[in-house]
Amino acid sequence: MHEIDLKKFNVRSDLVVDLFNLDDDIDGVKVKKTTIKNTNVIDVELERDVLELGKRKGKYITISFNDVTDTTNYQNVITALSIELKEMLEYLKIDDSKKCLVIGLGNKDSTPDSLGPKVVDSILVTKYLFDLSEVEVEKGYRNVSSFIPGVTGVTGLESADVIRGIVKETKPDFLIVIDALLSSSIERINKTIQLTNTGISPGAGVMQNRKEVTEELLGIPVISLGVPTVIDLITIVKDTIKFMMKQFSYNKETINKSSRKLAPVTSINYLNHEEKLTNEEKEKLLGMVGNLDDDELKALIFEVLTPIGFNMIVTPKEVDFQIEKLSSLIGSGINSALHKNKRINN
Amino acid sequence: MHEIDLKKFNVRSDLVVDLFNLDDDIDGVKVKKTTIKNTNVIDVELERDVLELGKRKGKYITISFNDVTDTTNYQNVITALSIELKEMLEYLKIDDSKKCLVIGLGNKDSTPDSLGPKVVDSILVTKYLFDLSEVEVEKGYRNVSSFIPGVTGVTGLESADVIRGIVKETKPDFLIVIDALLSSSIERINKTIQLTNTGISPGAGVMQNRKEVTEELLGIPVISLGVPTVIDLITIVKDTIKFMMKQFSYNKETINKSSRKLAPVTSINYLNHEEKLTNEEKEKLLGMVGNLDDDELKALIFEVLTPIGFNMIVTPKEVDFQIEKLSSLIGSGINSALHKNKRINN
Amino acid sequence: MHEIDLKKFNVRSDLVVDLFNLDDDIDGVKVKKTTIKNTNVIDVELERDVLELGKRKGKYITISFNDVTDTTNYQNVITALSIELKEMLEYLKIDDSKKCLVIGLGNKDSTPDSLGPKVVDSILVTKYLFDLSEVEVEKGYRNVSSFIPGVTGVTGLESADVIRGIVKETKPDFLIVIDALLSSSIERINKTIQLTNTGISPGAGVMQNRKEVTEELLGIPVISLGVPTVIDLITIVKDTIKFMMKQFSYNKETINKSSRKLAPVTSINYLNHEEKLTNEEKEKLLGMVGNLDDDELKALIFEVLTPIGFNMIVTPKEVDFQIEKLSSLIGSGINSALHKNKRINN
Amino acid sequence: MHEIDLKKFNVRSDLVVDLFNLDDDIDGVKVKKTTIKNTNVIDVELERDVLELGKRKGKYITISFNDVTDTTNYQNVITALSIELKEMLEYLKIDDSKKCLVIGLGNKDSTPDSLGPKVVDSILVTKYLFDLSEVEVEKGYRNVSSFIPGVTGVTGLESADVIRGIVKETKPDFLIVIDALLSSSIERINKTIQLTNTGISPGAGVMQNRKEVTEELLGIPVISLGVPTVIDLITIVKDTIKFMMKQFSYNKETINKSSRKLAPVTSINYLNHEEKLTNEEKEKLLGMVGNLDDDELKALIFEVLTPIGFNMIVTPKEVDFQIEKLSSLIGSGINSALHKNKRINN
Repeated sequence: MHEIDLKKFNVRSDLVVDLFNLDDDIDGVKVKKTTIKNTNVIDVELERDVLELGKRKGKYITISFNDVTDTTNYQNVITALSIELKEMLEYLKIDDSKKCLVIGLGNKDSTPDSLGPKVVDSILVTKYLFDLSEVEVEKGYRNVSSFIPGVTGVTGLESADVIRGIVKETKPDFLIVIDALLSSSIERINKTIQLTNTGISPGAGVMQNRKEVTEELLGIPVISLGVPTVIDLITIVKDTIKFMMKQFSYNKETINKSSRKLAPVTSINYLNHEEKLTNEEKEKLLGMVGNLDDDELKALIFEVLTPIGFNMIVTPKEVDFQIEKLSSLIGSGINSALHKNKRINN
Repeated sequence: MHEIDLKKFNVRSDLVVDLFNLDDDIDGVKVKKTTIKNTNVIDVELERDVLELGKRKGKYITISFNDVTDTTNYQNVITALSIELKEMLEYLKIDDSKKCLVIGLGNKDSTPDSLGPKVVDSILVTKYLFDLSEVEVEKGYRNVSSFIPGVTGVTGLESADVIRGIVKETKPDFLIVIDALLSSSIERINKTIQLTNTGISPGAGVMQNRKEVTEELLGIPVISLGVPTVIDLITIVKDTIKFMMKQFSYNKETINKSSRKLAPVTSINYLNHEEKLTNEEKEKLLGMVGNLDDDELKALIFEVLTPIGFNMIVTPKEVDFQIEKLSSLIGSGINSALHKNKRINN
Repeated sequence: MHEIDLKKFNVRSDLVVDLFNLDDDIDGVKVKKTTIKNTNVIDVELERDVLELGKRKGKYITISFNDVTDTTNYQNVITALSIELKEMLEYLKIDDSKKCLVIGLGNKDSTPDSLGPKVVDSILVTKYLFDLSEVEVEKGYRNVSSFIPGVTGVTGLESADVIRGIVKETKPDFLIVIDALLSSSIERINKTIQLTNTGISPGAGVMQNRKEVTEELLGIPVISLGVPTVIDLITIVKDTIKFMMKQFSYNKETINKSSRKLAPVTSINYLNHEEKLTNEEKEKLLGMVGNLDDDELKALIFEVLTPIGFNMIVTPKEVDFQIEKLSSLIGSGINSALHKNKRINN
Repeated sequence: MHEIDLKKFNVRSDLVVDLFNLDDDIDGVKVKKTTIKNTNVIDVELERDVLELGKRKGKYITISFNDVTDTTNYQNVITALSIELKEMLEYLKIDDSKKCLVIGLGNKDSTPDSLGPKVVDSILVTKYLFDLSEVEVEKGYRNVSSFIPGVTGVTGLESADVIRGIVKETKPDFLIVIDALLSSSIERINKTIQLTNTGISPGAGVMQNRKEVTEELLGIPVISLGVPTVIDLITIVKDTIKFMMKQFSYNKETINKSSRKLAPVTSINYLNHEEKLTNEEKEKLLGMVGNLDDDELKALIFEVLTPIGFNMIVTPKEVDFQIEKLSSLIGSGINSALHKNKRINN
């Protein structure tokens, strides 16, 4: 096994909550957990660039929820999103007179990547009314415009360049940028919204190495709103192998408890179990692979899958329906945060 | 009738061939007619701004054809378009090293206005390959990118501003801008392509008063490619009333010719007949309305229709099918004109 | 003028309220007018086939409203539609145990004809849950399925055949069929919903001579829900010419009233004015054309436009936005009428 | 490990070539391999139901190719498909007078599952012309209609029921049914077309347990055309684990060959290497998991992933672009096989 080059494989997640243990007390990191209408909200503030996580100084709000195809849940998440987005506006000292440009990144023709364009379709746009000298726009509405830059593979253009050009010409005061993200955790897919003011890398969900869209690049605040809609194959294979050990550990433990003797051995509840295998047990189960740490295991899987030459993504089967619901939910949340006159549930 | 305000109603057509009699010998106007594979091409060069027509100095190439749902016809029009577009590039001294940005104006969600976005979907884009330092792009391909700005009613942004921003940031050498146009002539709908280097007014087909996209605004040549896909209601009502007189005149004439005595009086062929009614005959047929000139008649119809408060457009019933064919045809024509390696029929 | 063949041109409207004066007391015709949340509802019951109108025995409910892009209005029309649809179900003695198949006629790729398919996209479908033997569906939900047959020009199949085949195999108890209609009245476009149990002719909005979808054909009740989204060109030209006379009459009258002497002569309010021109005045204004009745005028326009060879339709410019709103509104109305558990506003 | 229930996990592939070694000489199985324009074609004829593979008696034609985004390749595959489809028609004794109904299964809103609906969009439909008594259809065209049944999750209806209903009412002589398939082999994704006359199970690609569409159900020949566009997560995790062993074996072998001593140890070419590890080596590398056979390993992965409660599919990142090309390719192939007058490349 030593002949395999276990070069550091970069952990890859767009979600700050995936990157470190929120219960740790880290210098310069403030964590606040709340619940809004049964929806969990974690507000992480990095008071400095945290290089070891590859994350910039700024605010990261993570809203976690269950199935948005449930009507009650759907309404609750709109409320939570609207409240948190208003909090982000306050944090950035953006008042109601400030003009917003809403940008939907991603590829409208690829279902899991179509979140951004679909959200933009439901944004209440008013800029052209403000631009008409003869019209006085009703109070309670903000000056809002929107835009869908498309993806580099289709347009040949860098989204960051397109956005910078449009920002310079149309002069909004701040941006809201929506994109589908890549998750490093299968449980978060289509069940998390991350708001941050630290910028976004277009195509992060399905492409790499794009120029980032940040306040630094554009000169105005950038609020990005991301939902993990896909997970990469390497992560999911790694997770599955780790889950084998967790399940083995769980089964070993439960089978020894007399009270469970007659119960079926394999349980669907092993996920919350903390794996407690010894190195020997791991090796018995999974050989040398069993004792690789996360990064080593990902490096191995990366190497094994590379010659397949396939750049694969993993999505839930019902992704089209989930994206439909999420887009409409996020559109409503943004509209109600941006315009005083848009009550929630409209 | 005198109490009706016959203020000059502006003739409105995006097509130069609709605006004057091409057989007239006008100072500063050069007209060349050719035929390419059964397709008629009229090349009009205005050597000066022709204010009386509201048209700028420059080249206007009009390609006229029949039903593009016929396969042979379809291929012939691709050939004619490719040849004329290459001629336009030569006229503008644009060689193969020049980078092109192709822009599709219009609203993808409104069938007759979706031509621009649909054409862009079939453009062969290469810019991101040229941008990769490690890739050498095969000879015979030009650096091409593309963009769909959307419509002001949806984005809140002026298309001209969006385009200017993107041009400044991504630095193409010239633009090709595709849009659906408004026709002032029912026979031209979906049967004409106009190429010009004099700029284009976004939303001309279905909206008014947008900022124009011109070389003056952008600092680089702008080739616009337009197809009339709609006609406004005022024009079509005016045409119908004028056609009543033409048909009346035709019927009067044919009924008096002994050789036609037994033929059916009403003919479907009256359209090519030149109306020769006297003022008295016009008045007998259509009263005061019969003796209004085109502008007066349009002013009257405008006034009558205004309180309806409806902004109506007229399209052929099968417009979706025609737009589909036209988009793919125009995409092929542009690709083969831009890239040496794209043979026609690919 | 006598040489023009004034053959009877058939009045063509899918709306029963366009066809006769509702204030007339006609044998076998019961008319009931109500208002629900500012929305006008006219309930016409034909107790016999009314051959002179080409309309079958049955119930015709016409809901008339203004701009559905207004939020309050939008909600009010959902309420009115839901109430009237429930009334129709009661009239047809269809209880909550009856299985419904919702069918969206029309062409999803042609904006004004896409209403049916778009409504179906928002229908709450439950049949597959009822079909699962191991699932017990929550009370308050009806067994509902849905279907989009497409249009004959695309599939080659008669929609009525497709529907009959599916009805025979899947055995619903009744149908709701949604389609875009042709209006004979410009003011009704996208501002009227007609519910009837007398069947529907697929493609009525944009094509002719299709086989009808009726209870007679299928053996189960058919509730059709139609919205006029287009108007044919002949009707709109005829209307414009008639409006010229109305406006002339209005102007003549107002100019003679001393109190209005200083007011601008041309008013946008002439539409509600009743035209009172004498035959001489009509002839002065519009010659022989001025004294044609509606049918004669339509016949003349038909004849004049025929050689153009174009089959044109007229729609509002913003038809895409209106269809979007109407589809979602009608979907909500149907869902709340079909399922007890779907409160309005969900 | 023994406490894990290694119940037989069913191998699941819609492709007959995935299921057995084509070089084996199996009773009742005839295999013919050919190459058409650089495209590999394997024609498998099962002369009896082969229960052990779960495959019915009949013809299975497998066309394998590389990247269809290459133009030459694209044209070659159209030719191969057209030839093989004509061969299938001959095998089934279907002559040019026979009426065809082309059906596109799958969900147009889910990119990898949209192949069927997208192919149908490019089918040349003629039935409505044959149905017009006054039109004589040009020779060289077959009577063809088409249909998109939608998916059960959206319509609530079984596709097989919908199809049976339409077949009974519209009476085609045979069906061509297109669907996206599930692959059990990552290398085949979007690179294989399977033609068979043995029927198809709607939703096989992304859903289970649907009623099959077969000649038995419908009484007319059913030619199904499938392309594997997705792979299930269990298979891909299993493959990755097996590939670990293959790569380990490859590396071990190459490192011992003196001629390769200086070459980099890890090669992208290990895929064609035959794994030759001993049980001890497997155990060293992957513990007990290393010595599970394919079915046992899949059973384990299935069990581990079940509590995640996610039904995941794996697709290439660029699946939208590949599906676009494949749909148009398959549409052209079918059109040229069905209509004598449709030359290839039209």
